[in-house]
Amino acid sequence: MNALPAITPIADVALAQRLQHRIDQKTKPRGALGRLESLALQIGLIQRTESPVLHARQLVVFAADHGLAAHGVSAYPSDVTWQMVENFLAGGAAVSVLARQHGLALTVVDAGVNHVFAPRLGLVDRKIAFGTASALSGPAMTHAQCEQAIASGMSFLHELPGNLLMLGEMGIGNTSAAAMLLSRLAGVDIAECVGRGTGLDDAGLARKLGVLREVLQRHASATAPLDALASFGGFEIAMMVGAVLQAASERRVIVVDGFICGAAIVVAAALAPAVLDYCVFAHRSDEAGHARMLQHLKAAPLLDLGLRLGEGSGAALAWPLIDSAVRLLNQMASFDSAGVSDREDV
Amino acid sequence: MNALPAITPIADVALAQRLQHRIDQKTKPRGALGRLESLALQIGLIQRTESPVLHARQLVVFAADHGLAAHGVSAYPSDVTWQMVENFLAGGAAVSVLARQHGLALTVVDAGVNHVFAPRLGLVDRKIAFGTASALSGPAMTHAQCEQAIASGMSFLHELPGNLLMLGEMGIGNTSAAAMLLSRLAGVDIAECVGRGTGLDDAGLARKLGVLREVLQRHASATAPLDALASFGGFEIAMMVGAVLQAASERRVIVVDGFICGAAIVVAAALAPAVLDYCVFAHRSDEAGHARMLQHLKAAPLLDLGLRLGEGSGAALAWPLIDSAVRLLNQMASFDSAGVSDREDV
Repeated sequence: MNALPAITPIADVALAQRLQHRIDQKTKPRGALGRLESLALQIGLIQRTESPVLHARQLVVFAADHGLAAHGVSAYPSDVTWQMVENFLAGGAAVSVLARQHGLALTVVDAGVNHVFAPRLGLVDRKIAFGTASALSGPAMTHAQCEQAIASGMSFLHELPGNLLMLGEMGIGNTSAAAMLLSRLAGVDIAECVGRGTGLDDAGLARKLGVLREVLQRHASATAPLDALASFGGFEIAMMVGAVLQAASERRVIVVDGFICGAAIVVAAALAPAVLDYCVFAHRSDEAGHARMLQHLKAAPLLDLGLRLGEGSGAALAWPLIDSAVRLLNQMASFDSAGVSDREDV
Repeated sequence: MNALPAITPIADVALAQRLQHRIDQKTKPRGALGRLESLALQIGLIQRTESPVLHARQLVVFAADHGLAAHGVSAYPSDVTWQMVENFLAGGAAVSVLARQHGLALTVVDAGVNHVFAPRLGLVDRKIAFGTASALSGPAMTHAQCEQAIASGMSFLHELPGNLLMLGEMGIGNTSAAAMLLSRLAGVDIAECVGRGTGLDDAGLARKLGVLREVLQRHASATAPLDALASFGGFEIAMMVGAVLQAASERRVIVVDGFICGAAIVVAAALAPAVLDYCVFAHRSDEAGHARMLQHLKAAPLLDLGLRLGEGSGAALAWPLIDSAVRLLNQMASFDSAGVSDREDV
């Protein structure tokens, strides 16, 4: 593995005090904007300024296929991965509608979809292979592929404009990879990590759990973050790991969608814990393992809407709140400037 | 009291089935958009269509003063009510920033502020009086004032364009009125309804509770909705009751902000339960009694961000989610139209 980029914690006591003072002077009771206040503080610290600005916001959907999908771990066939990529590009998917609503630049990165796409605007070809191998019979990817995916994610991100990265993903079978990464790297029993994905019934869920136990057993020695990543996959998760490391090293705000994007954060944070300082967790999804994952990451998500779609839909839905936090910090009047009386006891 | 407008429940089994079918044919697993799916269904039923449209969305801040504020039930002096109205109109308040962000028309209705405002755009004079009387020494308002406020809210709403009403409020002391309305109309002990408002300390909270117990005792016979409303106030709450009844009768979507707007819904629903069919509850606030109020109303709020500001800030923050629900219903591709394979077991 090449050297990881340097990632600095955002802590800065003096700046945090100045930001908090600025927030407290706004025409509202102390703390009355709740979670939006801590969000404004975090973004100010990330950007090292009392007046943060978010520009050229990017929503990137990393897509890839999974060899394990052939073993019945998903309610949908693998072809849905490329079909949904076409749907993203045609503007008909949930994330397409939401990106349009909020003026988010939407890019789909083919990290390893089992399909040959016609080149077009909005689609970036970073294909490592036509899907990962089955993790039941060997590692999902070779170490060389894993490193290539991470490096590709880093270089892709470096070329991406803006200072805000919203993560999304598509890949039939990728809740399985995410569940195994969480189980292995957070030391959580796989039964607590595995869920219905996008719609398994009880029998399907039991089958999925059985397959994942077998895979975990087969790769029992893969305890280091990159060993686990190579063993379980997938290409889209590895590429997100690289993108996230690069984004944090460039002090960008990273908006994390749901369970699969969260798995990339679990890996990235195992490599460089300061990555978490740059993350805003968009929502708590309905996927069974996600609450456990957020707990592991000590993350307080913005939304809790029972979503279980992926694609970056939760990240897109959370965007206006992030925008609001920054606008409130920059645009609200202070008690002094507005001629409003502050509370009587201070 | 004049006759209330007719309010019809939104239930329509055939339309609900058609809406649900339309939602289920979208390129996503069944139910994967969680709360946004039930929201789209509700708005479709309100508008009696499979293709709802929200237009000319209005955020209205009803403002008034409270006689009880002289008894130390708030951390802020009463003058903050008119000062904040000026701040709303000047664009410096949280709700001003959020309305600008989302392109919401912002109107402030003076329902009874203790101040003479210079007339200007965005401010509507519906003043009943210069604040309510102290509920400790008599009813906060006379029955004539209460009826006038409700009728004024109805006529104001009738003239308001658009089919979406977002409720906001401003009034130092109005968490006290809201807490007493909840206590009396929902049969909940006042200790469970009272909170720190916009920032009382422990001693202030105890004082507030003592005052409210005394007021409730004094008006022990005011158990009917309008008697309770007249007894406890305030003008902005009464005007919201009228606006909400009118909005529901015109089948508008009503977005309810926090604890005080919620108290208007408690009163309106006691008069006409079908009002609740038209309500979207924006958020669960940090005000102590709000969770209890939402439980009484069987309401599932969209956001939970620890807000305790009022003004309609929570309603404005929830707006993009409501917009998203409608856009997803109208703009997402179906499995057929996008050529995406549906799950294998159906």
